[in-house]
Amino acid sequence: MTEPVLKIGVIGLGRAFTLMLPTFLADPRVRLVAACDPRPGARAQFQADFGGPAYDSAEALAQDPEVQVVYVASPHQHHAAHTRLAAAHGRHVLVEKPMALSLDECDAMIDACEAASVHMVIGHCHSFDTPYLECRARIARGDYGAVKMVHALNYTDYLLRPRRPEELSTRDGGGAVFSQAAHQVDIVRLLAGTRATRLRSALGNWDSRRPTEGAYSALLWFEGGAYASLNYNGYGHFDSDEWMGWTGEMGDAKAPTAYGAARRKLKTLPTPADEAALKAAGTYGGSAYHAPARTAADAPRAAHQHFGAFLVSCERADLRPMPDGIWVYADEQRDFLRLPPPPAPRLEVIDELHNAVFRDAPPLHDGRWAKATLEICLAMLRSDQAGADICLRWQTAA
Amino acid sequence: MTEPVLKIGVIGLGRAFTLMLPTFLADPRVRLVAACDPRPGARAQFQADFGGPAYDSAEALAQDPEVQVVYVASPHQHHAAHTRLAAAHGRHVLVEKPMALSLDECDAMIDACEAASVHMVIGHCHSFDTPYLECRARIARGDYGAVKMVHALNYTDYLLRPRRPEELSTRDGGGAVFSQAAHQVDIVRLLAGTRATRLRSALGNWDSRRPTEGAYSALLWFEGGAYASLNYNGYGHFDSDEWMGWTGEMGDAKAPTAYGAARRKLKTLPTPADEAALKAAGTYGGSAYHAPARTAADAPRAAHQHFGAFLVSCERADLRPMPDGIWVYADEQRDFLRLPPPPAPRLEVIDELHNAVFRDAPPLHDGRWAKATLEICLAMLRSDQAGADICLRWQTAA
Repeated sequence: MTEPVLKIGVIGLGRAFTLMLPTFLADPRVRLVAACDPRPGARAQFQADFGGPAYDSAEALAQDPEVQVVYVASPHQHHAAHTRLAAAHGRHVLVEKPMALSLDECDAMIDACEAASVHMVIGHCHSFDTPYLECRARIARGDYGAVKMVHALNYTDYLLRPRRPEELSTRDGGGAVFSQAAHQVDIVRLLAGTRATRLRSALGNWDSRRPTEGAYSALLWFEGGAYASLNYNGYGHFDSDEWMGWTGEMGDAKAPTAYGAARRKLKTLPTPADEAALKAAGTYGGSAYHAPARTAADAPRAAHQHFGAFLVSCERADLRPMPDGIWVYADEQRDFLRLPPPPAPRLEVIDELHNAVFRDAPPLHDGRWAKATLEICLAMLRSDQAGADICLRWQTAA
Repeated sequence: MTEPVLKIGVIGLGRAFTLMLPTFLADPRVRLVAACDPRPGARAQFQADFGGPAYDSAEALAQDPEVQVVYVASPHQHHAAHTRLAAAHGRHVLVEKPMALSLDECDAMIDACEAASVHMVIGHCHSFDTPYLECRARIARGDYGAVKMVHALNYTDYLLRPRRPEELSTRDGGGAVFSQAAHQVDIVRLLAGTRATRLRSALGNWDSRRPTEGAYSALLWFEGGAYASLNYNGYGHFDSDEWMGWTGEMGDAKAPTAYGAARRKLKTLPTPADEAALKAAGTYGGSAYHAPARTAADAPRAAHQHFGAFLVSCERADLRPMPDGIWVYADEQRDFLRLPPPPAPRLEVIDELHNAVFRDAPPLHDGRWAKATLEICLAMLRSDQAGADICLRWQTAA
């Protein structure tokens, strides 16, 4: 019953860390032993909350002998350098999505971890969510025949949430393709199961005040002949959580009457600096930060997290993962396979990391897996420009 | 108040006519004056119901001096010949969708009608349904800014309904592209408004017992930069009418508990001949045919017909046409614009035909419009084969 504990050092106490913190707090297999962040307020909060040291340099954190796993939660453009630093000190690495901004960076990260014989897990990404993993397991058992067609759709207010300026610049790793397709592509790949072969995309970028991709549609083909249609719109109008039982991305119950809240809030923020300041205030150590529950027992009950609507058409059934289970639309009947709600969010990430570190089990979400997802995101950006299909070279199967 | 009456002669008393008959019966602007069909039972039924002559040759019907409009409801492969015959006798023409099976046939039909100075309307097609026309009118008024992205999705049991063998052969005009994309493409073009420029598609054909397209996904681009994602699956698993308030394609209330009915029925039909016989029996003049109500007042109340889920993303709102109105998801609020239920189905077809014949008003759904939709359907078949975009040459704007 006494599981060994992952001693994690965090690089970057920002938004990604803030969203992972409930998981770290709820899971006894994790202890946060150190952190680093440029913001003194965030460092002070970490020291008060966890007692461990909070550095202002990533180098110092990576050297700390207490740190067994480095959680790279810095801005996207630093993922590669921080991963190499961690590996160079013999630490395992948990990297936030997107893995990096170029395939060369991915290769350097993979090489560094292999040279150091450490594991790398990329996540959280919504492809860790149990309903998707459970769909994949059932499909792999042969319950429904081969996957033939996948449809994915997510309409959100992504582009209207408070952002730092770089998050609205595609060149700097911002926009819906790097930030949102990274989830949707990963889930579609998991559900389809085989290696993707080619992609065609159309991008939407139609708000001059937020000049990055806010929407896209894409076709993705797979070995064996399956194809997928991926569709995303983050302009804050229709909300596809209506088709998810009004359960939000984080598994929370959502009020349809809150319609337009993100856009109304944005109107009160006249400058990019105001917007970045609001985002920082709500982040760990910020002036408006609210701490999550300290234990799973105290946390509000939520359903599984999700990333919009998915329909997986197999030869003998369509599968539809939902926040509380899986609809199976089979030949003559439809059934709802209820899944128990998670005791805490995102424990699947810790499962995979823990198994890798302590049992040497190869993680699904390893460097090659995440590089393949990034290749597809980059192909989405190129296909729209080129007006043609992009052939894929670095794909892996689930 | 006394509108002139369209005197219609029908070529083909089959399934298409059966579905249009409630409209003809309910609309005092229509009188059915003659018909032709190879089946003696259908001819006898027509004579009993309407008193007019029922011929066994299309030539005889076209010559009948009582006939002012010929309704071409014969199998797809005969549309071109029957339209030319009608035009040669100076009759206006209402042609069922798809207009024809090749662009050459479309050209011959357009030329014949122009040479004879008669109008041609292609329909019924679901792009006649009031919620779509109303969306187009509001967008054209500039209420929401330019259209940027359209998403269309329809999951049905199309491929499992009783069929004649030719309906399961793409070469003969069967399959989901000719039969179902003809609706979805037409509606997407109407909603987008501008001319389509290019298309990329993926086709699904995965039931060896019904070897034609049962599913597809496609990307369609438009002048001005808008794009659309079209998605169809007719394999009878997930039913997207769930997202249309459980209202069926014909505007009828649908019972979720009837799941799997089409597949169960199909299992009782061991041979193609059994299947074709069942279809014929339920058609006008067949042994199991049920006559519709003779007047609009007697007809069961229904909502507007529809063809699945559509999301039209404009600069300042998403529009979502529904069977009973239009959801408008605008910047700061969402509103439901309720539309009164139709007094009878498909009266929009008669509106357009009546205005063309008696007021010389150019119909929206004319030959060039329908040829453009067929061009896209043919491009869907070619793009999947070619593994590349197909450029479009014969497109028109709404």
